[in-house]
Amino acid sequence: MPKMRAVQVAQKGGPFELVERERPQPGFGEVRVQVQACGVCHSDCIAKDGLFPTVPYPIIPGHEVAGVIEAVGEGVVGWPIGTRVGVGWFGGHCGRCEPCRRGDMIACTNLRIPGINCDGGYAEAMISPADALVHIPDDLSSEDAAPLLCAGVTTYNALRGSGARPGDLVAVLGIGGLGHLGVQFAAKMGFRTVAIARGADKESLARQLGAHIYLDSAAQDVAAELTRLGGAKAILATVPNAQAMSEVIPGLAVRGVLIVIGVGAEPIQVSALDLISGSRSVKGHASGTAIDSEDTLNFSVLSGVRPTIETMPLERAAEAYDRMMRAEARFRMVLTMGQ
Amino acid sequence: MPKMRAVQVAQKGGPFELVERERPQPGFGEVRVQVQACGVCHSDCIAKDGLFPTVPYPIIPGHEVAGVIEAVGEGVVGWPIGTRVGVGWFGGHCGRCEPCRRGDMIACTNLRIPGINCDGGYAEAMISPADALVHIPDDLSSEDAAPLLCAGVTTYNALRGSGARPGDLVAVLGIGGLGHLGVQFAAKMGFRTVAIARGADKESLARQLGAHIYLDSAAQDVAAELTRLGGAKAILATVPNAQAMSEVIPGLAVRGVLIVIGVGAEPIQVSALDLISGSRSVKGHASGTAIDSEDTLNFSVLSGVRPTIETMPLERAAEAYDRMMRAEARFRMVLTMGQ
Amino acid sequence: MPKMRAVQVAQKGGPFELVERERPQPGFGEVRVQVQACGVCHSDCIAKDGLFPTVPYPIIPGHEVAGVIEAVGEGVVGWPIGTRVGVGWFGGHCGRCEPCRRGDMIACTNLRIPGINCDGGYAEAMISPADALVHIPDDLSSEDAAPLLCAGVTTYNALRGSGARPGDLVAVLGIGGLGHLGVQFAAKMGFRTVAIARGADKESLARQLGAHIYLDSAAQDVAAELTRLGGAKAILATVPNAQAMSEVIPGLAVRGVLIVIGVGAEPIQVSALDLISGSRSVKGHASGTAIDSEDTLNFSVLSGVRPTIETMPLERAAEAYDRMMRAEARFRMVLTMGQ
Amino acid sequence: MPKMRAVQVAQKGGPFELVERERPQPGFGEVRVQVQACGVCHSDCIAKDGLFPTVPYPIIPGHEVAGVIEAVGEGVVGWPIGTRVGVGWFGGHCGRCEPCRRGDMIACTNLRIPGINCDGGYAEAMISPADALVHIPDDLSSEDAAPLLCAGVTTYNALRGSGARPGDLVAVLGIGGLGHLGVQFAAKMGFRTVAIARGADKESLARQLGAHIYLDSAAQDVAAELTRLGGAKAILATVPNAQAMSEVIPGLAVRGVLIVIGVGAEPIQVSALDLISGSRSVKGHASGTAIDSEDTLNFSVLSGVRPTIETMPLERAAEAYDRMMRAEARFRMVLTMGQ
Repeated sequence: MPKMRAVQVAQKGGPFELVERERPQPGFGEVRVQVQACGVCHSDCIAKDGLFPTVPYPIIPGHEVAGVIEAVGEGVVGWPIGTRVGVGWFGGHCGRCEPCRRGDMIACTNLRIPGINCDGGYAEAMISPADALVHIPDDLSSEDAAPLLCAGVTTYNALRGSGARPGDLVAVLGIGGLGHLGVQFAAKMGFRTVAIARGADKESLARQLGAHIYLDSAAQDVAAELTRLGGAKAILATVPNAQAMSEVIPGLAVRGVLIVIGVGAEPIQVSALDLISGSRSVKGHASGTAIDSEDTLNFSVLSGVRPTIETMPLERAAEAYDRMMRAEARFRMVLTMGQ
Repeated sequence: MPKMRAVQVAQKGGPFELVERERPQPGFGEVRVQVQACGVCHSDCIAKDGLFPTVPYPIIPGHEVAGVIEAVGEGVVGWPIGTRVGVGWFGGHCGRCEPCRRGDMIACTNLRIPGINCDGGYAEAMISPADALVHIPDDLSSEDAAPLLCAGVTTYNALRGSGARPGDLVAVLGIGGLGHLGVQFAAKMGFRTVAIARGADKESLARQLGAHIYLDSAAQDVAAELTRLGGAKAILATVPNAQAMSEVIPGLAVRGVLIVIGVGAEPIQVSALDLISGSRSVKGHASGTAIDSEDTLNFSVLSGVRPTIETMPLERAAEAYDRMMRAEARFRMVLTMGQ
Repeated sequence: MPKMRAVQVAQKGGPFELVERERPQPGFGEVRVQVQACGVCHSDCIAKDGLFPTVPYPIIPGHEVAGVIEAVGEGVVGWPIGTRVGVGWFGGHCGRCEPCRRGDMIACTNLRIPGINCDGGYAEAMISPADALVHIPDDLSSEDAAPLLCAGVTTYNALRGSGARPGDLVAVLGIGGLGHLGVQFAAKMGFRTVAIARGADKESLARQLGAHIYLDSAAQDVAAELTRLGGAKAILATVPNAQAMSEVIPGLAVRGVLIVIGVGAEPIQVSALDLISGSRSVKGHASGTAIDSEDTLNFSVLSGVRPTIETMPLERAAEAYDRMMRAEARFRMVLTMGQ
Repeated sequence: MPKMRAVQVAQKGGPFELVERERPQPGFGEVRVQVQACGVCHSDCIAKDGLFPTVPYPIIPGHEVAGVIEAVGEGVVGWPIGTRVGVGWFGGHCGRCEPCRRGDMIACTNLRIPGINCDGGYAEAMISPADALVHIPDDLSSEDAAPLLCAGVTTYNALRGSGARPGDLVAVLGIGGLGHLGVQFAAKMGFRTVAIARGADKESLARQLGAHIYLDSAAQDVAAELTRLGGAKAILATVPNAQAMSEVIPGLAVRGVLIVIGVGAEPIQVSALDLISGSRSVKGHASGTAIDSEDTLNFSVLSGVRPTIETMPLERAAEAYDRMMRAEARFRMVLTMGQ
């Protein structure tokens, strides 16, 4: 069996190293995926910089993985070799913890996360439990599918579960890797979509993505503008910036919700009076399960949503990562394996 | 027609003055209520200290009013003289603003609030629009009904709309005017009820009110204890203390919610990571409409919930207010009119 | 003041008569609308044939009314002369019954319904309470707005409240006056939209309206096909045919819902086992309030939804009605007033 | 290893036979439960009479099983020997079908059901997958726990998911094995509880169980009475009688729901007009998962709910079953194993 090339981080804060490794064998209930594309996500810094104490070094990062099943372990039903599949943040659930027993598998307290607590997709092959696998529709390339498996499902799932109804005013705070998908999804879900970013130059992009309204947070009082528009039923906060989140809360409509998917260093400051007057809320949202990702891919095909990506071959992973961390990616970096 | 005695505040920060006034005449769609009892609420400080710029001085405070209709204006249907009624924070809605048109009348942008933007119940009589009236069941005294019209409906309504289901772990943060009702309601709704307060001495009281579990925030790490118990599906935050609220958030269960009904001076600090991991939320809740109050009174009769009150005659309003502001009331002060 | 032409029904089962009447004067809280267009709805047969015992003859039918305010009664705030407005099935609420007090105004037990229990829009002018008025966006003609005020709001409101999420499989049973709007709304809300009708010839129309999938109930086992597609999360039943409704229930997904908006003569037959296995439900949906209609019009402008209409002048009301009753309208008949 | 006694049905329609069998060995992910008590449920007739084509004869009936783990298979975590556990209708999920992937495990299309498609609890021992196991609280006897694992979880789960809020009018149709638990749960959840049954003699029992109101369907127009009381937000239909269900629908409140858990031979007749006017619904409800059962047991301990049972030793299974089928049980028959 051929070996595989992979990019690993040997220790906390260590560099990305291109290495050659044995192709791992799938255990009970697992498959091996021949990776075709792997997105580079901001959360990869958890592995790179050891932000969780549990990262098992050396680790292969990557949790936006698209490829083809190349080997199937015992006990796997319904996932034959050759099936095109993806794996995202949801890398498998334990089935035994309370959230799992309640069917809330994304909240599994023993959640397996590729590239975070087990080897991920910066490699030519990767192991995944079958319950984490996502069918990729034929109409979607692996490069396009990859970012939809984390950035995509997170924004799609947050929006469809936001409580906002078609025609309602929904805002997306930030137009980056997450936000450029959020704006597209919001528009295709029938929301009256507001994109919020810094600078007048982002407006034409926002409108191309489907935004009906653009607010420039560098020049406008965003909360006041939202209020003037009737108030946002939901604001999807994609930026890792607590202050920006705090500032938009007064722009929520009565019973509106700020959905937090970006993590900043500081706490969000929430005025009790802002919440009580208007019965507003602030809510965290966490990615989605395998079938949520499948829904995301299917919806993207149905409605024509696609990520804007830049691809680089696996061996340039460090460069791709740096570009993403400097917020220069337009809008998601995707590694390709050249297979 | 006899005049009426009333307690008014003549100007921002002024003292409570016992005065004699003409009995006001009900206009179109209004009734005049002969007041029998009026609760003293912490929010009365808005009138006393002019915390809202719109308080129309001189003003008669009081928004927990129970009494009997003694005069009926034109256009009023179904509220004959002699009907025993209450009026709470919800003092009438405009019917024209967007929330009203959506049926969300407690969020009316022109909400009439007795004792805050029009004369309230620290008086022998008071005017109220018919849409703000609450039927008081025969089995409830006016003294007991009064605090249920603000402290009661706020906690009852917040709990029944919390999303928690019977048997779920629900915590009430603070055992005071709001909290001592919240604990009773939670227990009678079938929640596994946790009372949280400072000091071991409150435990027996908490258990008398129906709490299944007591947590002493002076001695225990409340969030850790809640987590150990499985996590709270809802925490009703009745204390005006942002820090206490921030600290309990990690004790929420997956998809749990902190419901904010107390207003502190500082903002609540919310960690994005606490929200996202566990899909938790923080939500504001605002009182309830007239029929919500009616539901509250009916539920109190059905289940045996009663406020613990201390009564004082109207002329001792200043003393009652001071006692309440010093947090010495056990647990709600109620003024009686001696009629 | 000029008189007005109107079409009235003098008694139960009587013909449509073109008459000249005094222009009615708006009372307290009312306006007079100069009617520009009025849709012809199947429910107009309630007035024509006296299906409700309470129809006050002679009556002017019509509850899909679009026009301009031409006179304003006392007590009306915010609706100046010259405002373009609509009125639908929701013709005003009492504010006093239990549903009204709960903010559920479409369920008002004293609901005023134009053309059913008071004069409607088959006339050059009509009286309406201000709370029943709907703002019409500039981008929408009165002729297009009219059918959206009943057929539109009913389907839009049912779909946005169906519980189905973007990407879910949603079916519309019937492509007629209601269904041709339902299909458009469903597609624009991001649902994977199935249109169900009899005959292969309707397929191209269904696809033009935005349907992703077409099922011919004359040739296919609809429930089996829906099941094959994964099951419908919602089926909007627009046809007045109980048997057709009963037959699609097994095509619902787990926790799917059949939403009934069409009324047939026979009861719907529901198998308990079909409901229990899959936790399915059957639910009735009733139109919407004034602001629901406003949402409908705004969503139609936002997303490009328009009714397909045939217009006729007021004096041809009988012909328009007959055409509609014979199901020959493509798809809604609209009377115009030639003003 | 000792053999076990069991009661089996050898073929469709065959008698209950007491047999001696080898104690079965738990496979991967399974445990063997030493059965202490097993409830006799009406659904046992599916096995007895072969109502499902898939019953694998010979079969041991019984899906209300309480006992102690006596052997543990490979791959089982967290369920040591000696743990007291129950197993109900939910006997294990596949994890692969769409409902499972969505976390809706009770809707698993490959659901394992003890006593229906695999051997159940009419025996001294039984095999169960670990995911179907339910912790039994110390305060609950195995005899009391048994019926709560099917009749209990079904009614408790239906009621807590009904959408009714504490204080709302909730009716339970039928006071039998399901209904006598439904009435208790409804009362302990804070609902204003109506019990509906035939005959004046059931009233005192209904009130002992906690009903606030009793309606005698033999003497009263139940729908009219419910309407007079304000309308029921939920009616839990425990009787296998379609006509009785159809008749109560007009007694639902606005947005009220009829929850169907009993299966009759005939279809339920539903008037579209009844549904539409009032936006009412009819909904099926299916049992619950293992953790739902755990919630049921915990709530029963918390609130003092207990089934009324008659016990018989295993060897009298036929007699217990006949008594239940003749509706003579007061109210659930429970087999005990004498171990």
